[in-house]
Amino acid sequence: MAQKLDAAARAQALAGLKGWGEVEGRDAITKSFRFADFNAAFAFMARVALLAEKMDHHPEWFNVYNRVDVTMATHDAGGVTELDIRMARFMDEIAGE
Amino acid sequence: MAQKLDAAARAQALAGLKGWGEVEGRDAITKSFRFADFNAAFAFMARVALLAEKMDHHPEWFNVYNRVDVTMATHDAGGVTELDIRMARFMDEIAGE
Repeated sequence: MAQKLDAAARAQALAGLKGWGEVEGRDAITKSFRFADFNAAFAFMARVALLAEKMDHHPEWFNVYNRVDVTMATHDAGGVTELDIRMARFMDEIAGE
Repeated sequence: MAQKLDAAARAQALAGLKGWGEVEGRDAITKSFRFADFNAAFAFMARVALLAEKMDHHPEWFNVYNRVDVTMATHDAGGVTELDIRMARFMDEIAGE
């Protein structure tokens, strides 16, 4: 099972991501992605969904039109794990910012 | 352009839907859908996304695992229109509740 990252490992992991931040009052990380339009936003979501199923690790996300707000945490570990960092990195890669 | 439904038309439309309610403090309708798992939830979202693009009318929605919370409103009309009701009806149909 994935282990919750300690403060140092988490800070280092966040530094390696693009624009992810902490969620206030909760052990989770979050980012708001913007795309050209809904087509691009949903294409992003579809790619993330396929990886999520493969990893059996799913995002919490909100979408309206070209915006996708993502929150990642590992419920079983009670915080942020390497699984969340891996998903976040993939999202950064495919978002084409 | 779609016209905002008046109170009577809106009440009648809501009565024809399954489990949709008003959003407090906002002229919009909402429903929380539950599915067997993420696979089923995202399949639902993909079907809704295709219709949304076809109608050029998009949902606001939040997903975590098997849950999809949808809010529908027509921004240009400042409230709920026939477009929202049509999308809501489609979601009810395909959700297979």
